Amino acid sequence: MEQLFYLSDLFGVAVFAVTGALMAGRKSMDLFGVLVIAIVTALGGGTLRDVILDNHPVSWIRDDTYILVASLAAVGTVIWVRLTQPIHEKGLLIADAFGLALFTVYGTEVALRHSVPMSTAVIMGAITGVAGGVMRDVICNEIPLIFKKEVYATACIAGSLVFIGLIQLATPHWVATGIAMLVVLLTRLAAIHWHLSLPRFHLLDRD
Amino acid sequence: MEQLFYLSDLFGVAVFAVTGALMAGRKSMDLFGVLVIAIVTALGGGTLRDVILDNHPVSWIRDDTYILVASLAAVGTVIWVRLTQPIHEKGLLIADAFGLALFTVYGTEVALRHSVPMSTAVIMGAITGVAGGVMRDVICNEIPLIFKKEVYATACIAGSLVFIGLIQLATPHWVATGIAMLVVLLTRLAAIHWHLSLPRFHLLDRD
Amino acid sequence: MEQLFYLSDLFGVAVFAVTGALMAGRKSMDLFGVLVIAIVTALGGGTLRDVILDNHPVSWIRDDTYILVASLAAVGTVIWVRLTQPIHEKGLLIADAFGLALFTVYGTEVALRHSVPMSTAVIMGAITGVAGGVMRDVICNEIPLIFKKEVYATACIAGSLVFIGLIQLATPHWVATGIAMLVVLLTRLAAIHWHLSLPRFHLLDRD
Repeated sequence: MEQLFYLSDLFGVAVFAVTGALMAGRKSMDLFGVLVIAIVTALGGGTLRDVILDNHPVSWIRDDTYILVASLAAVGTVIWVRLTQPIHEKGLLIADAFGLALFTVYGTEVALRHSVPMSTAVIMGAITGVAGGVMRDVICNEIPLIFKKEVYATACIAGSLVFIGLIQLATPHWVATGIAMLVVLLTRLAAIHWHLSLPRFHLLDRD
Repeated sequence: MEQLFYLSDLFGVAVFAVTGALMAGRKSMDLFGVLVIAIVTALGGGTLRDVILDNHPVSWIRDDTYILVASLAAVGTVIWVRLTQPIHEKGLLIADAFGLALFTVYGTEVALRHSVPMSTAVIMGAITGVAGGVMRDVICNEIPLIFKKEVYATACIAGSLVFIGLIQLATPHWVATGIAMLVVLLTRLAAIHWHLSLPRFHLLDRD
Repeated sequence: MEQLFYLSDLFGVAVFAVTGALMAGRKSMDLFGVLVIAIVTALGGGTLRDVILDNHPVSWIRDDTYILVASLAAVGTVIWVRLTQPIHEKGLLIADAFGLALFTVYGTEVALRHSVPMSTAVIMGAITGVAGGVMRDVICNEIPLIFKKEVYATACIAGSLVFIGLIQLATPHWVATGIAMLVVLLTRLAAIHWHLSLPRFHLLDRD
């Protein structure tokens, strides 16, 4: 079980690293830039969570598998695209949704182990799931996609709330994890499929 | 006294959350984006201060009133604007100046409790007062306002210096707090009223 | 020796502060903005490294010489430019390469003292060397230069690897430091002189 969790965590790292590498490619960065953006996207959210929670050592500080997996995913992406294989957008979005589901539930769980209030645990789940992508977009000089796209962080807040609720109802740990991950995954896939969006808040600039 | 301090801290959080929500509206973000930008603006400065000072747990980690107040302020802003009530710019600027005064003095005090050198305490006051706004602007892809606007961080550095000076002269704590807050507030209000600015540093781009 | 190290560290701080002040000038910031960007550029990388490594207190928290040196360098830059002395670009690039060499080796060493895996130590060297510049560019709303320019972070990764290798071969500390710094310095100077770049990763935007 622990082993399975570790492997899916690495899978999430790989997926987010690919999205980082693709964004770096859209900005015509050099190979080092691709590597950095991939690593920041994959590990940034978890690092921010651990630093704010004072949860040391940060995962990739003690175990260099994380950096290795993120780097390999980035290099693999560049090679794949160079061989003119188009990126399968839909497949990437589904993988990304899986990574989001995993990171969100994992982040919420880490926060709960520090016995923080519920709202803090939800925020920590969201930070783990989305902050890496926000850092990617900020460094690449874009308004973060998650604020503009279909229901994204909402999926992750929903999953986080479901996880906390199930744990408090004394649901077995692996059941709560599974259901909460499904909630994130299905919400996100539904949002992609039917292009669901939250209402926008428009404000004219009167400065 | 402690109670009064806590309440004014929450007032500062609410005010900064409103400025975050308004900026998010100017960028036509969705409702979740509004919430995130509001929370980052309201709590980002204090979080950065605590993480750098190793002052754990961070305030909103242990007490979820902070997140709640920031969220309510953001939702309230959206509803208020939707009901086509225009935002009273002057009122907002004055409230913002009050929040700045409070956060600056509070941040300086937290730093002094860690017995850091004086210049560090001043920087910590400034980080607490302005870093949330800088994060708001960076995420929204704007050059941070505080570097372009009227005397802003200068007001906060002045207040921080006055606070440290009064404490070293053994002034009663609440007197020092009151005077330092007044310094920030009046400097900032004077800057708004007479459009005071620091001189600019222009450098032609020769790249 | 310890003294020499401290002095070169401060020299690195001064050099990076100058690059920050110049960037702030290109964005026509006010004098306070110049100061902040200079301080962030000079101390941001080391602060990020220490916060992620849980290496407290952060250097400039306990010793206010760092802030003082960065501030003086920023003010000096403004005065120098105002007196219409043109900035000697080549001299600045060489000084910057020296600062990079020093910060990289210093950051790697701090990480090794925390007995982290090798890849983590390399990343920490790179963070110390380049993160301040990345923060400068992100706050100033630019795509970070290091991702677009000639071999930059690559120089710093090479130096970090050489340092780790020499230390593991039980080379005397000061020899390892000297050689690793030379590697960074010479790689970077060669890159500037012959305009060496890593290949770019171009990806057409198909959204």
